[in-house]
Amino acid sequence: MPATDALPDLSRIYQARQALQGQVARTPLIRSESLSRRFGCEAWLKLETLQPIGAFKLRGATFAMSRLGPEQRQAGVVTCSTGNHGRAIAYAGKRLGIHTVICMSRLVPANKVEAIKALGAEVRIIGNSQDEAEVEALRLVEEQGMVYLPPFDHPDIITGQGTIGLEILEDLPAVDTVFAGLSGGGLVGGIGIALKGIKPRVELVGVTMDRGAAMVASLEAGQPVQVTEYESFADSLGGGIGLHNRYSFEAVRRHMDSAYLVNEAAIARAMVHFVEHEKMLVEGAAVVGVAAIEQHSLDVRGKQVVFVVSGHNVALDTFDRARALAAASR
Amino acid sequence: MPATDALPDLSRIYQARQALQGQVARTPLIRSESLSRRFGCEAWLKLETLQPIGAFKLRGATFAMSRLGPEQRQAGVVTCSTGNHGRAIAYAGKRLGIHTVICMSRLVPANKVEAIKALGAEVRIIGNSQDEAEVEALRLVEEQGMVYLPPFDHPDIITGQGTIGLEILEDLPAVDTVFAGLSGGGLVGGIGIALKGIKPRVELVGVTMDRGAAMVASLEAGQPVQVTEYESFADSLGGGIGLHNRYSFEAVRRHMDSAYLVNEAAIARAMVHFVEHEKMLVEGAAVVGVAAIEQHSLDVRGKQVVFVVSGHNVALDTFDRARALAAASR
Repeated sequence: MPATDALPDLSRIYQARQALQGQVARTPLIRSESLSRRFGCEAWLKLETLQPIGAFKLRGATFAMSRLGPEQRQAGVVTCSTGNHGRAIAYAGKRLGIHTVICMSRLVPANKVEAIKALGAEVRIIGNSQDEAEVEALRLVEEQGMVYLPPFDHPDIITGQGTIGLEILEDLPAVDTVFAGLSGGGLVGGIGIALKGIKPRVELVGVTMDRGAAMVASLEAGQPVQVTEYESFADSLGGGIGLHNRYSFEAVRRHMDSAYLVNEAAIARAMVHFVEHEKMLVEGAAVVGVAAIEQHSLDVRGKQVVFVVSGHNVALDTFDRARALAAASR
Repeated sequence: MPATDALPDLSRIYQARQALQGQVARTPLIRSESLSRRFGCEAWLKLETLQPIGAFKLRGATFAMSRLGPEQRQAGVVTCSTGNHGRAIAYAGKRLGIHTVICMSRLVPANKVEAIKALGAEVRIIGNSQDEAEVEALRLVEEQGMVYLPPFDHPDIITGQGTIGLEILEDLPAVDTVFAGLSGGGLVGGIGIALKGIKPRVELVGVTMDRGAAMVASLEAGQPVQVTEYESFADSLGGGIGLHNRYSFEAVRRHMDSAYLVNEAAIARAMVHFVEHEKMLVEGAAVVGVAAIEQHSLDVRGKQVVFVVSGHNVALDTFDRARALAAASR
């Protein structure tokens, strides 16, 4: 557990930027001709897909692990995520020479297990649910003193993701609006601290799928709440925010200007747009900003708009399903 | 016509690098986990797909146009290419404030015409063949004093493409082998001048499709020869090298270590590999290095290998055809 409940601030994000130099990719911000034309704006893509694990999560995981003391490094790091956070912990651990254990249930598909193993983590298969896997992770923390690193609700994780905001401002000081996928709040919260700390009038828009939008429901309730989850093309945005959320909820509450929900057909159409026009196969979670502008007819004309393309860990057959839905829904 | 028949040398490529700063993208070199594992090497991708027009051709076109004198700029630039060179001339012209005319025949599909127009060029539709379009281009040169910029056989074009070689060496000084698509020789010739000028023991491998490999046939004949052309997934590598080739043939002859021909099925499988594992939809021409290693069982184990991912201007339905062929040929 972190030593303080204080939210990270801009100066810590600058420190993270220094610490991450050479450890994670300084990703490019490229202009999108097709989206600029389509929305009448200057559209830019922040390509977190070019991180070594293909997703932004490497920033937070690497920064959090680089801050561990010698004893903690010795004890190793444990987490439960089978997705991009799990990949990030595995990759950062191998790179920093820290033993990592990813706990998962028997229900996790073999290809996900292999992908995490290939990145250098120890995989522990326990029980028949994510909850049982978490019990094992907490046992490792209590009995063996391992460090538990959660996917978003941790100051160093939020701080690491915040370096994306710094880089956006470096590359495009004139930025007006940033669209980012909204889930547990590590990404939007971190970027928000950076953007608002430097240029308060930048508009930060969080977007998530309309099925199981835990953060949006929590903001409306004024406190973290649980929602029912459903399958989605934006599955990277799934999961709750934790009923005892200490940091990311507050960071999002303070810094996000607006939130939009998007449906599966809009996500699917945006995924197809990215393959057809940007020539990138990316996760549904990475295209929700484009989906939001389309579905809600948002007016971004004349603005400098950045889309955080958060990750590309998606299978070709998922794209086939998205393409079928997009074709049926046009 | 250029003032000299001398091949460009390393110092000119350094000058081009300076001139191109801020004008074209300084593209990233990213590690490919999947290709590293598959071939037992350290595999790297030079992402020329991230140039604003989605292909490396912008380098040569921008450098050649930036070197024009005031009178030439005033007269404007003409070319015939409907592909990446045409896009590059159009884009560079708009950026540098130089009027550009792209001549093409009535047979060119409307979407290609629109793409070039959207980039800011004047399109002139003439006759029913590429030859007739060329006659019009030459008329504009003779009667209106416009500057004709060919797609590869020009010292400044070769020099501009050569900046890719400099960037590869900057990012990966330990590079052992570079694979690049071989067509008219602007890319391989330019990269060769840079690589061999700095690190002569780097191996430069040119790869092209086995249908209509004009440069390979010319090297075998000891002089430029014509070959019959066929449709290919690597259509960006199509076209002859010109019977009166003055620069690019010689640059390739001097600096390329070996050449491989690849068949359509191998290209198709490599295209599918790029979408499935790199999450990039790229041209067949951009994956011929991967196709060559697979088809010819080349041994690159333990080496630092760079693949020049030259461009991504390919339609989704072309990928569908590649996928079908790949599935049928596995």
